[in-house]
Amino acid sequence: MRTPSRPTSTPRPPAPGRVAIVGAGPGDPGLLTLAAHERLRAADVVIHDRLVTPAILALARPGARLVEVGKTPGGPSWNQGRINALMIGAAQGGAAVVRLKSGDPGVFGRLDEEMDALDGAGVAFDVVPGITAASAAASAIGVSLTRRGRNSALRILTGHDVDGFAEHDWRGLAAPGATAAVYMGVRAARFLQGRLMLHGARADTPVSAVENASRPEQKVVATTLRDLPATLAAEGIIGPAILFIGLRPRAAAARLGEVAPLYAIGGR
Amino acid sequence: MRTPSRPTSTPRPPAPGRVAIVGAGPGDPGLLTLAAHERLRAADVVIHDRLVTPAILALARPGARLVEVGKTPGGPSWNQGRINALMIGAAQGGAAVVRLKSGDPGVFGRLDEEMDALDGAGVAFDVVPGITAASAAASAIGVSLTRRGRNSALRILTGHDVDGFAEHDWRGLAAPGATAAVYMGVRAARFLQGRLMLHGARADTPVSAVENASRPEQKVVATTLRDLPATLAAEGIIGPAILFIGLRPRAAAARLGEVAPLYAIGGR
Repeated sequence: MRTPSRPTSTPRPPAPGRVAIVGAGPGDPGLLTLAAHERLRAADVVIHDRLVTPAILALARPGARLVEVGKTPGGPSWNQGRINALMIGAAQGGAAVVRLKSGDPGVFGRLDEEMDALDGAGVAFDVVPGITAASAAASAIGVSLTRRGRNSALRILTGHDVDGFAEHDWRGLAAPGATAAVYMGVRAARFLQGRLMLHGARADTPVSAVENASRPEQKVVATTLRDLPATLAAEGIIGPAILFIGLRPRAAAARLGEVAPLYAIGGR
Repeated sequence: MRTPSRPTSTPRPPAPGRVAIVGAGPGDPGLLTLAAHERLRAADVVIHDRLVTPAILALARPGARLVEVGKTPGGPSWNQGRINALMIGAAQGGAAVVRLKSGDPGVFGRLDEEMDALDGAGVAFDVVPGITAASAAASAIGVSLTRRGRNSALRILTGHDVDGFAEHDWRGLAAPGATAAVYMGVRAARFLQGRLMLHGARADTPVSAVENASRPEQKVVATTLRDLPATLAAEGIIGPAILFIGLRPRAAAARLGEVAPLYAIGGR
């Protein structure tokens, strides 16, 4: 969606390569977009997060250079400056670069920071949106994110931000009928529970957790706000997960945790 | 993501056909998922909304039966019962049915109503998530939907619901820093403006409108809450659009309204 953003009043030679910032979706390769697939097949260099699945990386052109820049808990991690420098250097060297991000790059993906760096370096780029984890997680519990007569709004929020546990409009979130998809909420579960109940949320507010949405190891847990931290601990939910405040799985979907996604491609 | 949901205690013969409820994304065929593409190529019957673009319908198998069930303003419209009956009848007749919905079926797509009808009829189905319009619209204005230090939450809401203009948590939406993507908000623009300012929103709150996100006729308008209704009228924004409350286009993206999407497939 972007064109080289150098002001036309200060011409510089165009950078020879370019960068596509591409959403990889939640993990199932069937949820990659056609545009993402095409970029991946054409890329010389693929710079990807840790959460991008091997099945998706396998779609890259043979011979493409794959670089993982995610943060491994307890392991080596890349800071944003190093990631930016890698992208820019590869593009300026003439490579077709794909910066592959889990989910939708625009949802908790630090997209703006990378766009700013590319703009600053005069490197052309565009952004290919991806399926965000909440959409796949809703499909996993067999409900829609919004529903006429139930919730005409949905909040998307993060359990963590740059300052630690993220503060939000708790009063609004605690109101009856409020519905939210919480990203990076597992470690913040007790904090979320405390803040919401302090602001009047009912203890029996339904909460659904979907770990590894759309992946073979997908797991669905249905609980309540009262039991949220204990249930997550008992079920061993530690991975990337969406917590839905105010949504319960469809009755018919209660055992979906055991069912492989049906939308996989290639007859899986 | 779904299995036939008939309780195992009341066995019935499985319906011979099945239904895939598939997100078509915002319009650009490049933003269709691989799974959606595969379903579309395999479908005998494609039941689609009015907003699904011809370029996407062209990906269906030659010979597939295409049925438009959208509501044309001032023209014929299908009620939900008729849509349900068509899906169920086709599946029970043995067809592979794709119910193709603009965007993500789970976001303002009346998905639950169709799942309930299919469940009631004992027809197997699954749901393939799609790129929702807000993701493509954010890409169009060159920003992310969330940003560290700017907004750690995003609200997705509708301008209209079953009762007319939709009521929301206006106090929260009017708070400094609140960020929202409003679907179906163009006709509700004056109502939104009134409610937000009544609850203390600043008149100079940035508002961006993206009409026909990701389509060749995409149009971007940047304005403020004060000028929102007048700007939409002056720019002739009448079509499907996302209104972003609290987001302004990147400076470098200010002229993106004139630029064709770059993530199209097939070298467009």
